[in-house]
Amino acid sequence: MELSRRILNMGFSPIRKLAPYGDAAKNKGIKVYHLNIGQPDIETPKEFTDGLNNYDDKVLKYAQSQGIPDLIRSFISYYKQWNIDFQEDELLVTNGGSEAVSFALTAICDINDEIIVPEPFYTNYAGFAEGVGVKIVPFITKAEEGFHLPSRDIIERKITNKTRAIMLSNPGNPTGVIYTKAEIRMIADICKSHNLFLISDEVYREFVYDGLEYTSALYMEDVKDNVVLIDSISKRYSACGARIGLIASKNKALINQTLKLCQARLCVATIEQLGAANLINTPKEYFDKVKNEYEERRNLVYNKLSKIDGVVCEKPNGAFYIIAKLPIKSSDDFAKWMLTDFTHNNATVMVAPASGFYATDGLGEDEIRISYCLNTEDLSNAMDILSLALNKYLEKEI
Amino acid sequence: MELSRRILNMGFSPIRKLAPYGDAAKNKGIKVYHLNIGQPDIETPKEFTDGLNNYDDKVLKYAQSQGIPDLIRSFISYYKQWNIDFQEDELLVTNGGSEAVSFALTAICDINDEIIVPEPFYTNYAGFAEGVGVKIVPFITKAEEGFHLPSRDIIERKITNKTRAIMLSNPGNPTGVIYTKAEIRMIADICKSHNLFLISDEVYREFVYDGLEYTSALYMEDVKDNVVLIDSISKRYSACGARIGLIASKNKALINQTLKLCQARLCVATIEQLGAANLINTPKEYFDKVKNEYEERRNLVYNKLSKIDGVVCEKPNGAFYIIAKLPIKSSDDFAKWMLTDFTHNNATVMVAPASGFYATDGLGEDEIRISYCLNTEDLSNAMDILSLALNKYLEKEI
Ligand SMILES: Cc1ncc(COP(=O)(O)O)c(C=O)c1O
Ligand SMILES: Cc1ncc(COP(=O)(O)O)c(C=O)c1O
Repeated sequence: MELSRRILNMGFSPIRKLAPYGDAAKNKGIKVYHLNIGQPDIETPKEFTDGLNNYDDKVLKYAQSQGIPDLIRSFISYYKQWNIDFQEDELLVTNGGSEAVSFALTAICDINDEIIVPEPFYTNYAGFAEGVGVKIVPFITKAEEGFHLPSRDIIERKITNKTRAIMLSNPGNPTGVIYTKAEIRMIADICKSHNLFLISDEVYREFVYDGLEYTSALYMEDVKDNVVLIDSISKRYSACGARIGLIASKNKALINQTLKLCQARLCVATIEQLGAANLINTPKEYFDKVKNEYEERRNLVYNKLSKIDGVVCEKPNGAFYIIAKLPIKSSDDFAKWMLTDFTHNNATVMVAPASGFYATDGLGEDEIRISYCLNTEDLSNAMDILSLALNKYLEKEI
Repeated sequence: MELSRRILNMGFSPIRKLAPYGDAAKNKGIKVYHLNIGQPDIETPKEFTDGLNNYDDKVLKYAQSQGIPDLIRSFISYYKQWNIDFQEDELLVTNGGSEAVSFALTAICDINDEIIVPEPFYTNYAGFAEGVGVKIVPFITKAEEGFHLPSRDIIERKITNKTRAIMLSNPGNPTGVIYTKAEIRMIADICKSHNLFLISDEVYREFVYDGLEYTSALYMEDVKDNVVLIDSISKRYSACGARIGLIASKNKALINQTLKLCQARLCVATIEQLGAANLINTPKEYFDKVKNEYEERRNLVYNKLSKIDGVVCEKPNGAFYIIAKLPIKSSDDFAKWMLTDFTHNNATVMVAPASGFYATDGLGEDEIRISYCLNTEDLSNAMDILSLALNKYLEKEI
């Protein structure tokens, strides 16, 4: 029996594919600094555990397919703080933002339909699209331009009669870009004039630095039927393991139809929903602290990177990632080599090779994505090790 | 913007679609007996909560994409009790058996490939297949034959060059059938000679009555590379809300490739995995008690049904469902009518119209599925109400 072509075409996660080498290094007693994965080290607010403790049923029942009412209401209150008004039938709780993306693609696209996405993009978009038979059509954004959007006509040139949506993450993973209001307006205009959905992945909404203003796609009132929001508590509350996300839209028909997908998989984990529902009580100071912490880390990583000879990168304004171009041919090889052949004081680092964040063949092969989810001391050590490793790797190359 | 044809083609869950009418009845103060949903009322073993209490991390992290090691090991021990030997790289933890089915279809089938399924089948198979662009090709099994399989040639006639697998649930939902060893052998032979996968959904493995012997597809050693197991803790431990299932196979290539799908969606809820891992310590008496309880309920429902004029049904041997043919035209209409227009002592019942369990148009329209997940007292009341409702409905028809 053969497996499907689509599964064979999919890649292993560039963020996770080096895990076996990392494990092997750890088994040899080597300390591995994880710069590869967007797993915040920030404490989950204790409100989550308080919420879990609300569970006192004798039977762990299926929850409502659309999510438990308390959680839906808590999301509605949360969006109010961002001046976004949602009603109960405009939100569906999902297994993380991940499932929300899959559901959005399935509800919007038939087989072989196309989605336009700025490149580099969150790598798993490719997997979700392949899984449900949808084609990602990328347009390039560049490190030198801080990964901001190109002009309208460059994007519009990608539109065909198969195009159903533009999808972007804002703040951007892996780029850390924060799109300006003018950029979001431009995307909204394109969607409006070509009748496209705008799938807006805003899971890093809280992580905007340098005092920049955040523009949600939902602020564009005239395209509110086009906008499909992807969201998640994973990053916001450092609660990745809860697997709680949502898909939301003022387009009630879309949400109503997507409920079919929710019903088919029955529900999202009941107890974690109770924890998540109580996160609305997290004090505001939590976010201020977290933001300051990330801003400091961003500065540290950016400063250290800028000092390494031959490295090209721009200072990102959001999320907790940075893309760096290295003076090497294959970041895949380099990342693996750091785990198999390099240590400094019995430690090494794991990074994510960036080619997996591009759909266009050949792009990103000399880039890595660094995620700054470690405390400043570890981060500082890790960056020093990365710098030493790069030098050693380049010597070896000669 | 239009939604996708595939989402519009999907049905709302026949098990859940009457929920709004049920809610409306409840809001009027009417007691609604739920015979529609496979939500056991049996207590979840306290081992689950004990396991939850093992959670003491300050950061709720992503778990391993394949599942936490403790849970994988506990599944391996569990299968040993059934004389099935799995290794760690042959199992992947999923968001319930639901996600396992989606993953199996995606890993095995390309767009427009076909899966042969005995009809009636677990209704959500249709949704999962539609979602990933796979076609379900049904062959009929009949109430009069206890929903046992037809002869080999009838099944083989459904095979085309697009067929990639045969999928069945054993014990069966919605039929309660337990396939004999000879039946499983026959399916295995078909898969072997036509190079097909055998997707065996065994989530009701524990629910086999009347002293019958259970035959897992995994007992067929010569087709072990063909067999893909779908499993779940939902029914076994009455832990539906945990959303813990798995996909397993001795075909390591299949599991390795399916890991890509696991990586794309990152992981399954971390805390619920801790609860699930500890369920292996559930005492054996738990299952004996549960089985006796269900057997008693099965007898009660079957006896009451048999006494209703014009109702046709066979005594099922497993799971906790029974399909009944009623002397009516539309079970959809009848089920809705019971919620909107009928009460007895201020109570009514919700059942699942059976047409949603068939892929062939027109089949099942006079059938309902009853799930016997209520205690015997409630069940007895519910069956009496159903009988009265049917009489009243038939009078109205004349
Ligand atoms: C841009 C973006 N969207 C969605 C997700 C999915 O996260 P989750 O499924 O944990 O909500 C991630 C996770 O890293 C992400 O970076
Ligand atoms: C036959 C069968 N397979 C799979 C499932 C999925 O269950 P879960 O996702 O809760 O494991 C069900 C649920 O009712 C079922 O009846």
